[in-house]
Amino acid sequence: MIEQNFLTKDLLSEEDIKLIHKTSMEIFEETGVEIHNEEAREVFEDHGARVEGEKVFLPGSLVEEYLDKVPSSFTLHARNPDNNVEIGGSSGVLAPGYGAPWVTDMDGSNRDATYEDYENFTKLAHASDNLDVLGGVLVEPTDLADEERHVKMMYAGAKYSDKPLMGSALGKKKAREAIQMASIIMGEEEIICDRPIVITLINTTSPLGYDNRMLEALMEHARFNQPTVIASLIMAGSTGPVTVAGTITLQNVEVLTGVILSQMVNPGTPVVYGSASTIVDMNTGDLAVGSPEYAKFIGATAQLARHYDVPCRGGGSITDSLMTDGQAGYESMMTFNASMGHGMDFVLHSAGLLKNYMAMSYEKFVMDDEILDMVNNYQKGLAVNEETVAKEAIQNVGHSGHYLKEPSTIEHMKDFRVPALSNRKGFDSEEASKSTVERAHELCESILSDFEAPPLDPKIDEKLQDYMDRTT
Amino acid sequence: MIEQNFLTKDLLSEEDIKLIHKTSMEIFEETGVEIHNEEAREVFEDHGARVEGEKVFLPGSLVEEYLDKVPSSFTLHARNPDNNVEIGGSSGVLAPGYGAPWVTDMDGSNRDATYEDYENFTKLAHASDNLDVLGGVLVEPTDLADEERHVKMMYAGAKYSDKPLMGSALGKKKAREAIQMASIIMGEEEIICDRPIVITLINTTSPLGYDNRMLEALMEHARFNQPTVIASLIMAGSTGPVTVAGTITLQNVEVLTGVILSQMVNPGTPVVYGSASTIVDMNTGDLAVGSPEYAKFIGATAQLARHYDVPCRGGGSITDSLMTDGQAGYESMMTFNASMGHGMDFVLHSAGLLKNYMAMSYEKFVMDDEILDMVNNYQKGLAVNEETVAKEAIQNVGHSGHYLKEPSTIEHMKDFRVPALSNRKGFDSEEASKSTVERAHELCESILSDFEAPPLDPKIDEKLQDYMDRTT
Repeated sequence: MIEQNFLTKDLLSEEDIKLIHKTSMEIFEETGVEIHNEEAREVFEDHGARVEGEKVFLPGSLVEEYLDKVPSSFTLHARNPDNNVEIGGSSGVLAPGYGAPWVTDMDGSNRDATYEDYENFTKLAHASDNLDVLGGVLVEPTDLADEERHVKMMYAGAKYSDKPLMGSALGKKKAREAIQMASIIMGEEEIICDRPIVITLINTTSPLGYDNRMLEALMEHARFNQPTVIASLIMAGSTGPVTVAGTITLQNVEVLTGVILSQMVNPGTPVVYGSASTIVDMNTGDLAVGSPEYAKFIGATAQLARHYDVPCRGGGSITDSLMTDGQAGYESMMTFNASMGHGMDFVLHSAGLLKNYMAMSYEKFVMDDEILDMVNNYQKGLAVNEETVAKEAIQNVGHSGHYLKEPSTIEHMKDFRVPALSNRKGFDSEEASKSTVERAHELCESILSDFEAPPLDPKIDEKLQDYMDRTT
Repeated sequence: MIEQNFLTKDLLSEEDIKLIHKTSMEIFEETGVEIHNEEAREVFEDHGARVEGEKVFLPGSLVEEYLDKVPSSFTLHARNPDNNVEIGGSSGVLAPGYGAPWVTDMDGSNRDATYEDYENFTKLAHASDNLDVLGGVLVEPTDLADEERHVKMMYAGAKYSDKPLMGSALGKKKAREAIQMASIIMGEEEIICDRPIVITLINTTSPLGYDNRMLEALMEHARFNQPTVIASLIMAGSTGPVTVAGTITLQNVEVLTGVILSQMVNPGTPVVYGSASTIVDMNTGDLAVGSPEYAKFIGATAQLARHYDVPCRGGGSITDSLMTDGQAGYESMMTFNASMGHGMDFVLHSAGLLKNYMAMSYEKFVMDDEILDMVNNYQKGLAVNEETVAKEAIQNVGHSGHYLKEPSTIEHMKDFRVPALSNRKGFDSEEASKSTVERAHELCESILSDFEAPPLDPKIDEKLQDYMDRTT
């Protein structure tokens, strides 16, 4: 968790926000959004929207009416209450990379991710002091059959961590099963709907659509009062307009559609305004998440969500690089510093990803954890008071002394951040020849070999295993 | 040059600044600063300071009186007027790494820097669209005799570039000779004192002192109306208090001393408030410039300088890493983004450095140039207007089209930044196995092999060579 100090200024003026909002409302009324699920269209129609075929048209007044019902923050509960987090509160809540089908090894080779990788990344995320939420598709366990992935992923989250969990967005059945498993993990007999215990990621289908599976999962979560992140991943220049402002406007229509549906299903259910949109690289036709333009998407998205008083999700520690190299370092620092500086409430993709959202890397995960910790320290700013300006020490030492022996030095030297990964040794040190990726590899190995899972009640463990047997 | 948009918020409150200023004035009056040059002490005494032995004590009123004389901005002239820069204006002016005695090669091996390296880095700095000022100790040419280094460095700056130049701070004679050579480069017969043509870096001796050579160079520059950067490099916890606030206070006293001396010598002469201070790493006892604490030094220094209405220098694209790896990437992005976000007017060390200020690297130089360009793009923010929100394109494409064919896409796709170094290709591309440092190496080779020096008037070239023969 990283305290939100909004150290970066707003990118949008009040005028900018008004224009984006006005244009969004015109698109809602004139162009509409395709909703590929009959039940969802009925919900919209029952609550005052105009439906034509699969298209839903929302008058601005209706959008505003339902936006008013969204809670500005909510607590996501963990099985260990010490690990509960408030999303939309005063801190940025961080989750690791999400959805990658591949793992990139240290030599740069690429392979399909497995359930063992899933377990390992769960352990790394649990061990991190900076990461708050795990579960979901931390990495895609391609060696498991599709119908058992969601419950096995949930189980790994329970087995190796007591932090809050993400669920499944793959249709009604899987969403429900993830909620049921989360309820068992919390030690309850019945399915929990009195408090948020599992959050899931709902993606739009750009431009201007939602598919059936996502709509089912969205509504299922809303019914049980479980939070969702509604996010667009628009590629500006390909699935969206070629300008940041235009794609932000298109995204606004898409995301608000899901947000409003959640409130029509269950007014007051927690929901997060999300984005993974960025530009397309004009040479490769691929996403460019390590771009400075992406940092602007982060800022504009966070600001629009705050305008609507809805918690926001976006950003991450992400890169277009294929390996844990210099580019991965500078791009991830740019995107994560923007995520925190602009005040994102919930940040998926905070650790581990390479090649936009395609591959997880153990070394990158450990490097990103260092980036999170550095940004956290920077965002805290500095304390200026009679003690810290240190007049007495300055006068004691005078013109030719050394501050190392000053009592204030001994007292405060622990205040400086000590890096976990970064090398501050000299060219003559033993470690001089080790690059970041090599040091990260060693650090990762030691975290995994020292890992101790938090205790899990054997009765709950048994129930989870029974549940998995029954559902798969 | 990077437009200053102050995208990052102030770290210090008005109260914080008041306390730092008040404490600084108390140290000025009660503790004083050691000035190891008799002439400088006489200047202080003649203008109302109290002098005891080598110590100079300044009453607050005197500090404020002379601070009022400092120009809030000035133009540094180049031999090609198109390359003139305003320091303290609306853009951050960038210069490459300064002062490194070593060069680190791609394999991580470290060697003494040579004059050939000096020439090569001059070419790279000239070729960069982001770097504005070069010369000075771009790298230490250790294969040249000490007495000829400053003129040979100046000559390389003239031969391979027509951008503004830095001079020498190594005593009165060398400072004068650099000013004389800069005058010849400008095509003048006499030494120029009607406009700034060469800027030099004056360092304090912490804590609370100035050595003889630096004082001589400072006064010589002031006499000829040539700008200086007065900078502290305090190591918080060793040569300064262990808190950022305390070291900022100590630095304030040190830097203001030099700033005031420049104004006593020549009221209105251009001067820059500078800092390279950072924390000491408590495990190694070495500087930690890649730390988040360093980013706070950048912010606090820039803000104090603005409070005094004096142009500021600090920051850079710097790292503690020994090679062009992930750490070099994330640390350099953190420090450079802070430098621009906090509105530094002049940034030394913008490209090439490894291991704080100790080693230059060709690959790091090229990587940093990419970082500068990314930060430049980000700091520009985004344009929101009727055209960019792209309502027409959104409605034309609707729910299932593609934006690539939209006329607005073709018109605006060139607006997205195209990286010079960063890889956005996929795992199946030919370049997939090349890391950032390898790609930077190739890019650097091609810049150097394609390099064409801007034309230099043969008469001026001859005069410079004559001058070098006479002085060395």
